[in-house]
Amino acid sequence: MSSAKRTKTNPDLQKERDGASFNPFSLTCLLHGGEDNVERKRELERLALDDPELQHEHLSFLSREERYTLGIKKTIRFINNCWELDINGIKDVNIYKTAVFRGMLEPLSVHYGMFLPTLLSQGTEAQQDKWFSQALNYAIIGTYAQTEMGHGTFLRGLETTATYDPKTEEFVLHSPTLSSAKWWPGGLGKSSNHALVLAQLYTQGQCYGMHPFIVQLRSTEDHTPLPGITIGDIGPKFGFDEVDNGFLMMDHVRIPRENMLMKHSQVLPDGTYVKPANSKLAYGTMMLVRSYIVSDAAQSLCRACTIAVRYSCVRRQSEMKPGEPEPQVLDYQTQQYKLFPLLSAAYAFYFASHYMMDTYFQLSGNISQGDLSQLPEIHALSAGLKAFTTQVMSSGIDTCRMACGGHGYSHASGLPLLFANATAGCTYEGENTVMFLQTARYLVKCYGASKTNEKLSGTVAYLSRVQTAAVAGKGARNLLNLEELVGAYQHRAARLVGMAANQLQAQAKAGKSPEDAWNSCSVQLVKCAQAHCHFFMVRNFVDAVRTADVDSATRAVLNTLCQLYAIHGIIEHSGDFLEDSYLSGQELQQVNSHLVSLLAKVRPDAVALVDAFDFPDEILQSVLGRYDGNVYENLYDWAKKSPLNKSQVHESYHKYLKPFLQQNKAKL
Amino acid sequence: MSSAKRTKTNPDLQKERDGASFNPFSLTCLLHGGEDNVERKRELERLALDDPELQHEHLSFLSREERYTLGIKKTIRFINNCWELDINGIKDVNIYKTAVFRGMLEPLSVHYGMFLPTLLSQGTEAQQDKWFSQALNYAIIGTYAQTEMGHGTFLRGLETTATYDPKTEEFVLHSPTLSSAKWWPGGLGKSSNHALVLAQLYTQGQCYGMHPFIVQLRSTEDHTPLPGITIGDIGPKFGFDEVDNGFLMMDHVRIPRENMLMKHSQVLPDGTYVKPANSKLAYGTMMLVRSYIVSDAAQSLCRACTIAVRYSCVRRQSEMKPGEPEPQVLDYQTQQYKLFPLLSAAYAFYFASHYMMDTYFQLSGNISQGDLSQLPEIHALSAGLKAFTTQVMSSGIDTCRMACGGHGYSHASGLPLLFANATAGCTYEGENTVMFLQTARYLVKCYGASKTNEKLSGTVAYLSRVQTAAVAGKGARNLLNLEELVGAYQHRAARLVGMAANQLQAQAKAGKSPEDAWNSCSVQLVKCAQAHCHFFMVRNFVDAVRTADVDSATRAVLNTLCQLYAIHGIIEHSGDFLEDSYLSGQELQQVNSHLVSLLAKVRPDAVALVDAFDFPDEILQSVLGRYDGNVYENLYDWAKKSPLNKSQVHESYHKYLKPFLQQNKAKL
Repeated sequence: MSSAKRTKTNPDLQKERDGASFNPFSLTCLLHGGEDNVERKRELERLALDDPELQHEHLSFLSREERYTLGIKKTIRFINNCWELDINGIKDVNIYKTAVFRGMLEPLSVHYGMFLPTLLSQGTEAQQDKWFSQALNYAIIGTYAQTEMGHGTFLRGLETTATYDPKTEEFVLHSPTLSSAKWWPGGLGKSSNHALVLAQLYTQGQCYGMHPFIVQLRSTEDHTPLPGITIGDIGPKFGFDEVDNGFLMMDHVRIPRENMLMKHSQVLPDGTYVKPANSKLAYGTMMLVRSYIVSDAAQSLCRACTIAVRYSCVRRQSEMKPGEPEPQVLDYQTQQYKLFPLLSAAYAFYFASHYMMDTYFQLSGNISQGDLSQLPEIHALSAGLKAFTTQVMSSGIDTCRMACGGHGYSHASGLPLLFANATAGCTYEGENTVMFLQTARYLVKCYGASKTNEKLSGTVAYLSRVQTAAVAGKGARNLLNLEELVGAYQHRAARLVGMAANQLQAQAKAGKSPEDAWNSCSVQLVKCAQAHCHFFMVRNFVDAVRTADVDSATRAVLNTLCQLYAIHGIIEHSGDFLEDSYLSGQELQQVNSHLVSLLAKVRPDAVALVDAFDFPDEILQSVLGRYDGNVYENLYDWAKKSPLNKSQVHESYHKYLKPFLQQNKAKL
Repeated sequence: MSSAKRTKTNPDLQKERDGASFNPFSLTCLLHGGEDNVERKRELERLALDDPELQHEHLSFLSREERYTLGIKKTIRFINNCWELDINGIKDVNIYKTAVFRGMLEPLSVHYGMFLPTLLSQGTEAQQDKWFSQALNYAIIGTYAQTEMGHGTFLRGLETTATYDPKTEEFVLHSPTLSSAKWWPGGLGKSSNHALVLAQLYTQGQCYGMHPFIVQLRSTEDHTPLPGITIGDIGPKFGFDEVDNGFLMMDHVRIPRENMLMKHSQVLPDGTYVKPANSKLAYGTMMLVRSYIVSDAAQSLCRACTIAVRYSCVRRQSEMKPGEPEPQVLDYQTQQYKLFPLLSAAYAFYFASHYMMDTYFQLSGNISQGDLSQLPEIHALSAGLKAFTTQVMSSGIDTCRMACGGHGYSHASGLPLLFANATAGCTYEGENTVMFLQTARYLVKCYGASKTNEKLSGTVAYLSRVQTAAVAGKGARNLLNLEELVGAYQHRAARLVGMAANQLQAQAKAGKSPEDAWNSCSVQLVKCAQAHCHFFMVRNFVDAVRTADVDSATRAVLNTLCQLYAIHGIIEHSGDFLEDSYLSGQELQQVNSHLVSLLAKVRPDAVALVDAFDFPDEILQSVLGRYDGNVYENLYDWAKKSPLNKSQVHESYHKYLKPFLQQNKAKL
């Protein structure tokens, strides 16, 4: 239990907790995989949160340089502690890390997120002997330098070259233009002394495309940049203050032939290029990264909902009835309409991240046994879900912030920082529109295959049963029935995929090149990919509710949330369901009344539903979202610590205001 | 012309300008009210932009304290220059101010935005003699202290008290609770030495509600807080770094009776309260403030579109056709779909702000002649438009940022700062949901009045002709015809208002109190207010295009933009048009093809359309949005100036990284 939890709780919040229809701990256990896991999580969190070496001022009181320095200090403490306290395993390490950093980002995350895994997956045994153990033990620090100033998502467009010189058995790494400067890699600017540089490989006069090369950037003696290396920080960003995202230009930098990672492709000493056996292996890592992004998106949305829901119970505003006390903001239907669908989405995303993780491990097993059959489907799904969840999460945090009124705009709420950091997920690791179009390409392909009676399986199996013709409502339907709702989303997704595919075909028939046809249908293609992801979300949420090992009270509240998630989506996209008369206008009216009932049904359980996420106050970093609800006292305490309050009279008064006021007074 | 415009322009951008179908200058003149105004605008801008005293580092390189200090310095320079250079009139002053501050906010804006006008409108002649001239000449600096820590939009909930003591003929100002601390007023924390404090007036044992009192906060000698005054900065926020939004607590602070502004209400020396003649007079000021917010929203969206559209022509990405060069990002339909509807909205908002300003001045004339008849209609419209424009603007800037990919996330783009500052408009001066509900209350009232055959006029006249029954499509319609589009939006607004009103009535009939009925329909009420505002926007845009005094090429492009604005809105809210079969599914398909054609039609004019806004580079403050399009060189130059690049090896290396690396190396 966090220390905050021991103080007296705001009575409004206590009343909410007392009135909940279920025990939030049962949901906490469901979300975290059982009671043992919850206990271990809390134990690891306390280890980090109580560590005196990890205490510091509120982030928003620090300058960017101070935050970078703090990030480095925390990183080192984090690594040393993992070693000393024997914190192992990706799950434990991640829990501990989250509690160490508490809303900060880690300047060296690329070292263990990309540098180490790439060494492992693409280095030969000899290379691993040489580099991996140094890197694993942080005797060197590496980053992964892929994107360039002028080139992002499109890897083939990268300009950096690695030209093999058989005379010296070296590669010459070079940045031929300004736009080829490596730009954005985390930890590149000031921290790393090595990088895995992705460059176009040239040997024997021919280009063989992108390959990874180990380049030493800075001296291991004094950290100064090596000859030929121009390196620095790319400057301040929306968020990520702690991270030295960097730039790198190389002027004919020579590295030994052995510094090309050669597990898959090779360049022999004479310059002969040897092709890789299977180029699809890298997709596994990409899927893992995307699974983490989905999981992060879920976490970020959970945090924002926790803050906004708790504060909306503490905050009282306006007068609903003359003479009565100001109601809790959460009693306003408009506030419920903002927050509860997001709360239901947070649960949907949580369950989706469980699915992604499970699927990843299952898939990895299959791949290691040579079975790549599921790869395209899961790859397409992971691209779409990455985009779908980050998009909803990003705008959702913003909605939560604005739902907290003026105080949401203060850094005391924690929401501006949460937004600024989390919204980056919409752009990195594949820009969201590009991601949706990848998913769409696979869906359209599957739709085409189904027309030739090819059997589809997994998450796209439903495309075999596409009905694009208008389907009238089938009489009286119960639109609170979960399978009925799944059916509605499935119908919408199938119809939109079919429509996009048919449009594409029509454009091609009209004489357009495949590329022009694709581009001219791309708005529709994005929409069909979104509909597919939305269908997956509803389907998966329904399955999660059905299979959840929980008591009946908990199942009932999950069921309500799941209904709300699906009903709200129909209202937000009502045109898609009305367009072919799948729903009638009258049915939509029913859906609207269902929404009103569901909001009212969630209301008494809202606080318990966010408590179930089990964020310690120190991780939430929000005065508004405190577990004890003592918002106003702590808002005042927080403000008093603001750097501008260090003196009663700010120095700018003496320098500027005083002479100005005196000048003006004299003139009167 | 800005100095940046003299450098060689990026050929991609030059080609766009050469290929435009119209002369952007003609649109610039339309937006700014004629060629003379444009020339005056540019002259004033150059005065500020070339002023050596107003040059400084990029804002994102400065700490918050440095930004506050810079804000004070600029404010003083701005005021002195207005005096010295004889810059007068609200229009000229605002143009000059925008160029002085360049994306920064002004710490003392509340002084001339609220303190001065309130003295003028609510002070007696004697009070104006005493205070107004001191304030006008900046011998004192004042703020307007209304909102409290626990109370925002609902004024009657404010807790601060002003109790009259007839023995000493003084008011005793007091903050009885922590939640009554004044919280948020701009310039309150460190800068102001006076405030207009809004407090509950108590005299002769009775409370008379909110009244304004002049309270001196700080010594005019040394700026220290006066006895009984606790004052400070409320801490860092999402944006508004330059502004010392402050808190204020008063412990039985005594002020003379004459410090209550008494033009309308009075407290006589013996404590007798004299009621105001007309309480509606304050609405005029509120409307002016909201007009400015609509205008600011338009400007912010124009800036974001300028940055994103220009950069999307310079940026090349991916491969549309094998072997061909990477296309300009703006050639992707998905990019056009993100940006062009926002561009059309920026124009719609610009024209709406013209309407609001014109109406305000007309209304002020009427009010001064005692005619208050139009006030409720315009008040309701201004509340709705404030909410409607800020909402679209806020999410629109975010869309523009993400449309710029990774670089949009860098502060070099200018977009994160633009967003963080501008999004505050969704919350201040009336939270948006509260605003929409104010509009809805008026609409429902009008709808009821129309049922009793009362004549409605102005922007709500259409509600007399409400048809709530399903209306089938009237055969072949040309949905590119502007009047047809206006009709569609009018039908939607009228239907949704009618539906909300009927729901409200049904709830009341079912036995709910008016307040509970209102709350239980509030999601629908917000939707009907949004539909009303959307209808106004389309109607006003169409009128602006029709009456614009421009050449035919310019009119043609305006016509296209207006069609796009309306068509896009139908797609985004298709359910509202399909629900009662006003549009058929087939017609919606036509609307979708119209959208595709309109995007393609806007494409060649996109750069000219943003050039027409006529933002100098120094005001845009965006490396990506530069007029000359030389993005990459300037991105690199900007990054090199980042504070983290002041040394090759950051001090944290010596303090933390070096010992860590050495420790680990030794262990290997």
